[in-house]
Amino acid sequence: MFIKRVLCKELAAHNGQVVELAGWVQLVRQVGRQLAFWVVRDRSGWAQVVVSGALALTALPHESVVAIKGKVVTSKSQQGYELQADAVTILAEADELPFELHLAEIKAGSEQILNHRVLSLRHEHNQAIFHIKAVVAQAFRAHLVAAGFLEVQTPKIVATGTEGGAELFPVQYFEQTAYLAQSPQFYKQMLVSAGFERVFEVGPVFRAELHNTSRHINEFTSLDLELGFIDDAGTLMDLETELLQSIFAAVNEKCSSELELLGATVPQIKRIPRLALAEAQTILTSEYGHPSPVGNLDPAGEKLLCQYAERTWATPLVFVTDYPTTVRPFYALSKREAPELTHSFDLLFRGLEITTGGLRIHRHDELVQALLTRGLNPEAYAFYLEAFKYGAPPHGGLAIGLERLTARMLGLDNLRQATLFPRDRQRLVP
Amino acid sequence: MFIKRVLCKELAAHNGQVVELAGWVQLVRQVGRQLAFWVVRDRSGWAQVVVSGALALTALPHESVVAIKGKVVTSKSQQGYELQADAVTILAEADELPFELHLAEIKAGSEQILNHRVLSLRHEHNQAIFHIKAVVAQAFRAHLVAAGFLEVQTPKIVATGTEGGAELFPVQYFEQTAYLAQSPQFYKQMLVSAGFERVFEVGPVFRAELHNTSRHINEFTSLDLELGFIDDAGTLMDLETELLQSIFAAVNEKCSSELELLGATVPQIKRIPRLALAEAQTILTSEYGHPSPVGNLDPAGEKLLCQYAERTWATPLVFVTDYPTTVRPFYALSKREAPELTHSFDLLFRGLEITTGGLRIHRHDELVQALLTRGLNPEAYAFYLEAFKYGAPPHGGLAIGLERLTARMLGLDNLRQATLFPRDRQRLVP
Repeated sequence: MFIKRVLCKELAAHNGQVVELAGWVQLVRQVGRQLAFWVVRDRSGWAQVVVSGALALTALPHESVVAIKGKVVTSKSQQGYELQADAVTILAEADELPFELHLAEIKAGSEQILNHRVLSLRHEHNQAIFHIKAVVAQAFRAHLVAAGFLEVQTPKIVATGTEGGAELFPVQYFEQTAYLAQSPQFYKQMLVSAGFERVFEVGPVFRAELHNTSRHINEFTSLDLELGFIDDAGTLMDLETELLQSIFAAVNEKCSSELELLGATVPQIKRIPRLALAEAQTILTSEYGHPSPVGNLDPAGEKLLCQYAERTWATPLVFVTDYPTTVRPFYALSKREAPELTHSFDLLFRGLEITTGGLRIHRHDELVQALLTRGLNPEAYAFYLEAFKYGAPPHGGLAIGLERLTARMLGLDNLRQATLFPRDRQRLVP
Repeated sequence: MFIKRVLCKELAAHNGQVVELAGWVQLVRQVGRQLAFWVVRDRSGWAQVVVSGALALTALPHESVVAIKGKVVTSKSQQGYELQADAVTILAEADELPFELHLAEIKAGSEQILNHRVLSLRHEHNQAIFHIKAVVAQAFRAHLVAAGFLEVQTPKIVATGTEGGAELFPVQYFEQTAYLAQSPQFYKQMLVSAGFERVFEVGPVFRAELHNTSRHINEFTSLDLELGFIDDAGTLMDLETELLQSIFAAVNEKCSSELELLGATVPQIKRIPRLALAEAQTILTSEYGHPSPVGNLDPAGEKLLCQYAERTWATPLVFVTDYPTTVRPFYALSKREAPELTHSFDLLFRGLEITTGGLRIHRHDELVQALLTRGLNPEAYAFYLEAFKYGAPPHGGLAIGLERLTARMLGLDNLRQATLFPRDRQRLVP
């Protein structure tokens, strides 16, 4: 039972003892016929193993899996100790590799790296990214559980799209055509109305977007929350600010070595500035001569606005608020004093939108009217509308893209780098 | 901003103060024209509100949402205190209800309860079930994080089914046909090989099973784990035992009032007995005259075996081990000393299988051979097989159905009762 083995990072604590180590042979340095140095890697890190005598003749391809029994001794190696191998068991021999893992960076193109994803994930940079990503998701949950939110699982096979039919993947569901959920939007609102009041979900969402850019993947993880008995989008922005403070604090605390390895710095946030969309557009025109599309920002504008926030308020984050009703979904709540605008916001982080949120319509008749105004058929939304028939509180919520947040936090160029097995326009494997 | 309101369960701490309460009016008891008692419910519980004078004339349908300003006073009510309303704001008025929520049980059929799911979820029994379910998922994660497991998200849109094509939902993925993942099986194994060694996932799985029974739903939540560097299925059973101990302890600690409300008792586990399938079948024949299908147990047999375990060892849980190779998937590892049997197990809990687990084949050539033996085409599994080409450790894992575990823990007859919005042969909404 190898589960009782000692991990690489624990070796130092076993100095002078005979232990068993198990892992991948990342590098073999042969020093004559009677001596070799192996770099062995496991989930905790790596260790140097001295292989001498007949054992040094073991012809072992890189990335083969071994169990090694030996004595821990102090040495002049980088770590100050090493393992002197007495016995080696080969658990699995590797084929010739498409690229090596012992270099500071993988020497291969991005497609090659994704084609051989299991191999590329073994690189210490990738190990670090996904350890951090896990901490982000866990900190999101911990913050919300402490704030009285209930964790839920909502269906991913749904009868109707959230936004009226575009960008949906069809599923053959027995005799019916169903769709993959673009977001848990409807269901999280329904669960607020179902009396849970405060709910969150960490789960997959699916978007049949045709874009194939560094900013898009077709399946990603959404950090969703929704809460009742609020009537101000500012409450949501306050909540997201505290949530990001918790997440960044957890990453700083638990992942310092990973951050160092990746050369990444997690921001300190006090208050995140809030700009109405109209203000943001004015700033982009006056400061950068960059016009924006009607009622929105474009990707270049998002980047410039983050530069502006960095320069003006020394923060990499900025909320953009008050989007027009025309660019928001039918369920977005309009402002009473300015019905052409909604109680809504996006959050930009280092040039990329990572959140959309806002208040929602909570009255049945207003929702029906909002659907009709957009030419949508209320009958197709009957299961959703019913949630507002029997008393739903005023409510709102937001969603954070886990891959987008992780990628911006770590300065990764492409969302695929923050996705174990990305799905895009062309890629369905591995 | 109602977010600063006082919750029902906090009222007692505000005795003598003027506070604001917000929630659903579950029951109105009119006592003449000048006096009414309302039961108001929020996510924390309920409180009695005394409505007098002109306010008592408010004609308010049950389940309407209100905000009430008033003074907390001691009273002869069940709780010992109540709120004397000074002002009532109606936030949303409810339509006529298909069933009431203030009774000990909802008086409606199971289809009706699911058709009006948002309403039925408001019943205190259902609130309790989903609070417990959330604690189960959180305790699963906490135990595994502490044991060095990494939380992962694997793709739900996949190119190939795990078991060779049956029971898959097809997805139109741009120009290709893809499928919904039946389990994260392939990906969790690939991630062990990707150097993470120990991974877990809490996520949706999809099974196009035609069965429409209390034991089947077509989308459910799988608690999956996989770990490397083990060579004994016993290690997995030990791990699952500890995991269930942690989960049951967390539920006992955090959900005592919910358990009491549901009349449920969470078992104390020391050791879970382990029976080889052949032994289990012999017991079923000799003790109950119940023959089993070849190489397996049937649902009636699973129930009888749990009765036997309860009677013999005073435990509601029993592992059944050593399933034949013919009834397990191609990746199951056969026993060297008895190649017709696998290193595998199921866990039965109060009459229902809640887990399947076992050791897996970790050598590329053996996997290819296992596919060929079953008439499967290795080319269709190329992305999976590659994970075993470059050195994969011996490994194994298991999966627990979250709804099955929750339902058996709470003595619920039907998995749908432990599912917010169940998907089955007929049901795609709400």
